[in-house]
Amino acid sequence: MRTVQVELGERSYPIYIDSGLLGQAGTYLEQHGLTKKSPLLIVTDDHVAPHYLGKLEAQLQDHGYTTVSAIVKSGEASKSLSVFEDVMTVAIKGGLDRSSAVLALGGGVVGDLAGFVAASYMRGIKFVQIPTTILAHDSSVGGKVAINHPLAKNMIGAFHQPEFVLYDLETLQSLPPRDVSAGLSEMIKHGLIQDADFAKWCKEHAQQLLALDAETLGYGLERGCSIKAHVVSQDEREGGLRAILNLGHTIGHAIEAVAGYGEFLHGEAISVGMAGSALLAVKMGRDASVYEETMALLQAFHLPTTLPAYLNVDEIMAAMMHDKKFKEGFMVFIIPDAIGAVSIVSDIPEQDVRDVLEQLRDGGEAIV
Amino acid sequence: MRTVQVELGERSYPIYIDSGLLGQAGTYLEQHGLTKKSPLLIVTDDHVAPHYLGKLEAQLQDHGYTTVSAIVKSGEASKSLSVFEDVMTVAIKGGLDRSSAVLALGGGVVGDLAGFVAASYMRGIKFVQIPTTILAHDSSVGGKVAINHPLAKNMIGAFHQPEFVLYDLETLQSLPPRDVSAGLSEMIKHGLIQDADFAKWCKEHAQQLLALDAETLGYGLERGCSIKAHVVSQDEREGGLRAILNLGHTIGHAIEAVAGYGEFLHGEAISVGMAGSALLAVKMGRDASVYEETMALLQAFHLPTTLPAYLNVDEIMAAMMHDKKFKEGFMVFIIPDAIGAVSIVSDIPEQDVRDVLEQLRDGGEAIV
Ligand SMILES: NC(=O)c1ccc[n+]([C@@H]2O[C@H](COP(=O)([O-])OP(=O)(O)OC[C@H]3O[C@@H](n4cnc5c(N)ncnc54)[C@H](O)[C@@H]3O)[C@@H](O)[C@H]2O)c1
Ligand SMILES: NC(=O)c1ccc[n+]([C@@H]2O[C@H](COP(=O)([O-])OP(=O)(O)OC[C@H]3O[C@@H](n4cnc5c(N)ncnc54)[C@H](O)[C@@H]3O)[C@@H](O)[C@H]2O)c1
Ligand SMILES: [Zn+2]
Ligand SMILES: [Zn+2]
Repeated sequence: MRTVQVELGERSYPIYIDSGLLGQAGTYLEQHGLTKKSPLLIVTDDHVAPHYLGKLEAQLQDHGYTTVSAIVKSGEASKSLSVFEDVMTVAIKGGLDRSSAVLALGGGVVGDLAGFVAASYMRGIKFVQIPTTILAHDSSVGGKVAINHPLAKNMIGAFHQPEFVLYDLETLQSLPPRDVSAGLSEMIKHGLIQDADFAKWCKEHAQQLLALDAETLGYGLERGCSIKAHVVSQDEREGGLRAILNLGHTIGHAIEAVAGYGEFLHGEAISVGMAGSALLAVKMGRDASVYEETMALLQAFHLPTTLPAYLNVDEIMAAMMHDKKFKEGFMVFIIPDAIGAVSIVSDIPEQDVRDVLEQLRDGGEAIV
Repeated sequence: MRTVQVELGERSYPIYIDSGLLGQAGTYLEQHGLTKKSPLLIVTDDHVAPHYLGKLEAQLQDHGYTTVSAIVKSGEASKSLSVFEDVMTVAIKGGLDRSSAVLALGGGVVGDLAGFVAASYMRGIKFVQIPTTILAHDSSVGGKVAINHPLAKNMIGAFHQPEFVLYDLETLQSLPPRDVSAGLSEMIKHGLIQDADFAKWCKEHAQQLLALDAETLGYGLERGCSIKAHVVSQDEREGGLRAILNLGHTIGHAIEAVAGYGEFLHGEAISVGMAGSALLAVKMGRDASVYEETMALLQAFHLPTTLPAYLNVDEIMAAMMHDKKFKEGFMVFIIPDAIGAVSIVSDIPEQDVRDVLEQLRDGGEAIV
């Protein structure tokens, strides 16, 4: 069993990573002091539910817990205010009280949605993450929870740390290949921002990771969670440093919004965004190898690195203007200095970003 | 000028109470370090806007601030998810960023709604309260912000403390008489829970308070805010003590929900609730004088103390079951022990509550 501790003072919590943890969920809830007198709400989606919901419910009921479940539609579109309201309705009808907890069984979508429900139900109740995607190794660390506004992603949310995270590697076996790649995109990101060795390790183990080899995946998730936890513990509410986790996200979020939530997977969109950041880095004078190595890494995982022709650059620029990575009128970007090191640059000229978007259409040919 | 300091560690903030403060809003924002580089969002309602919005906007613009305004419909129905989304849209289109602030110009409805917008826009930005009702002396202290779910009031919210509160007594002059009485209901509550002298003072000054005499009102608001601030500073997130502020609210919230939000004013509903709590107190053996004095106090302010015939007792009971004052299956009530002292009682039998509701129909005759 691997355990990563997220150090956040009185809000610290552990991430347990192992095969078979879902079948021990009740014990973990007990160990973490969750009361049996108040009902639990499980939030999951309709791809995950057929595989794992029954098992989780049975496990919890065996341990004397009462549960109600909200099954939302799979996909980013469920991070909406209307689905949020539906889940709230289930919570109220299910009799959740201030001692209840919300359990997120699913990927980042379910985690973000359920987390915001937990953060705002009766002004905040307990929250447990049971991630079932690789991408969720990212979303389950750091307490950022949110839903989307039609005009901009993750615009409505909170910081709400879970009690603990239960990562059952077995549940990853049923992931579609596209989600495997997309999830590994955030793992790669963790290497790119802070750990060149880990980036190298990822590239060398691309085949095993894509094949969901449990031992390799366990190590990758542990290392990815650790890097993120380390950053977050130094800057819980994103006053500064934490922004480096947004590598590739300024462009990535805009792509997701313009393509229509759900067209691009989040990990795919930020893969294009990371390629874009690398182009921007070279434009600003960083060594061309940053771009080449980033591309090689992303391509080893079959991740997209170009902008499809049907996406309009003006619309992407407009979406970025709404994105929360803009502070007091300036465009803020996370720029790679080298593999494993990034800078937060806050005065990027609009035209450079526009040029990079145009170049992303042609696979970066124009610049390197 | 009267100032009440709300002591909450690094989240401490002052409440400024005086005549003419609206015309100095820009100076206060500057003093509290709010940046001029990011736009401000003013949230107000369509009863308040014609009186004070233009003045506030002009004042802020004179000081070099950029503002956008969201004007919602007056009334409790605006504390809904759909209005919340509309205000979010104004914020996004107005270009609010993480350094922006939300200003609530209005009563408790606007304060609660705008506060939840501030708490969740980009996971939390700054918040300033500019209350224009008497009731808002209560809602502007303690950082509870929320919107309603169709099934239960204040179900979706957060704890989000303002930077400061600017209470301009002049703005209270335009309040309709019904809102004056309803607002004083929470002031009376502050006397009933912790300060017998203040409760007595309220009764003795009922005429001046109802006539909006600035000096009397200034003192009443200062004292009301102080009592609440003192309670809140001991228990910010309602782990225990803070619950005493809910005197009259368990029944009151249920009345609001069943009557349809907006039918009963909040202060009116909790007035009936306080009468109910006093009846319950006598039922549990407290001296009958608690009930008699509570009734005399409420009636001095022309506040309702009976349940109209059109309200169904079963529906009110059901609404209470959804209310968040129920913990792990027990009914929790705040029960007056005497004027100025209350207890939190957590094992009230359902039948006693039902009896009290029936008695409230007949003005309490049946019991005393
Ligand atoms: N909060 C954060 O810090 C943070 C960080 C990164 C990403 N995110 C968010 O996470 C979301 C993306 O997460 P995601 O990629 O996990 O998306 P997701 O939750 O939509 O899951 C991806 C897909 O896999 C399916 N699925 C999940 N688990 C499965 C399983 N075990 N077997 C079969 N199918 C399964 C889902 O139904 C969905 O179709 C985005 O909304 C993004 O904004 C949040
Ligand atoms: N957050 C808290 O701690 C807390 C505490 C108590 C009450 N509340 C909430 O506060 C709300 C009730 O507050 P309220 O009574 O102030 O309601 P409100 O905001 O609806 O104001 C009452 C009425 O007065 C009008 N109005 C406001 N200021 C005016 C002015 N100066 N001149 C003319 N008209 C004016 C409004 O348009 C409205 O019609 C409820 O939703 C209640 O749940 C919250
Ligand atoms: Zn991400
Ligand atoms: Zn109240």
